[in-house]
Amino acid sequence: MSYFYSPDERASKTLFGDITARTFWGEKMLMSLVDLPANSVVPLHSHPHEQVGLMVKGEATFTIGGEKRLVKTGEMWVIPGGVEHMVEAGDQPALALDVFSPVREDYQY
Amino acid sequence: MSYFYSPDERASKTLFGDITARTFWGEKMLMSLVDLPANSVVPLHSHPHEQVGLMVKGEATFTIGGEKRLVKTGEMWVIPGGVEHMVEAGDQPALALDVFSPVREDYQY
Repeated sequence: MSYFYSPDERASKTLFGDITARTFWGEKMLMSLVDLPANSVVPLHSHPHEQVGLMVKGEATFTIGGEKRLVKTGEMWVIPGGVEHMVEAGDQPALALDVFSPVREDYQY
Repeated sequence: MSYFYSPDERASKTLFGDITARTFWGEKMLMSLVDLPANSVVPLHSHPHEQVGLMVKGEATFTIGGEKRLVKTGEMWVIPGGVEHMVEAGDQPALALDVFSPVREDYQY
């Protein structure tokens, strides 16, 4: 096994509608590199896992715990477990890294 | 408190020599956005925390558990707790996101 991963060499998993991700994990965390097509929406949801992340490319509007904000390239978020959140892409695609702890088993493939 | 963070608005913490980071955390994870100046080196070390990450900008040579690899923009890593690793920047600066679980208390500020 290697410690290194190239997302370009990894198949994608569908998360919601036309939103896909490539995921990589250890024992405590799972990284999810999420491709958000233009105008895509991650609907309001919550999970017991803590979620942190960074906007790698582009921008999207996040609503977390009722707080709404346009998150631009390089900006970051921390979502405690159980807090409802949603994401709305703009008219350009975006790429976001989410990291979950504990590992989201439903995101392994 | 907000769930959103702009690294541009956060002061940096020195990690090793001229290497600095801006860190953000929840209860289970700590994100460390690391600025690697040209030719900087994170010396070989290990810690009990699991560490995952993504190269945000630029590239650097990682050695993890004796495996050496040039990690380019967008590539990722998973370092189990206790595995020795080091990072060597090239002749250009790089920006890397590391995420630790459990939270590295020595990286909080």
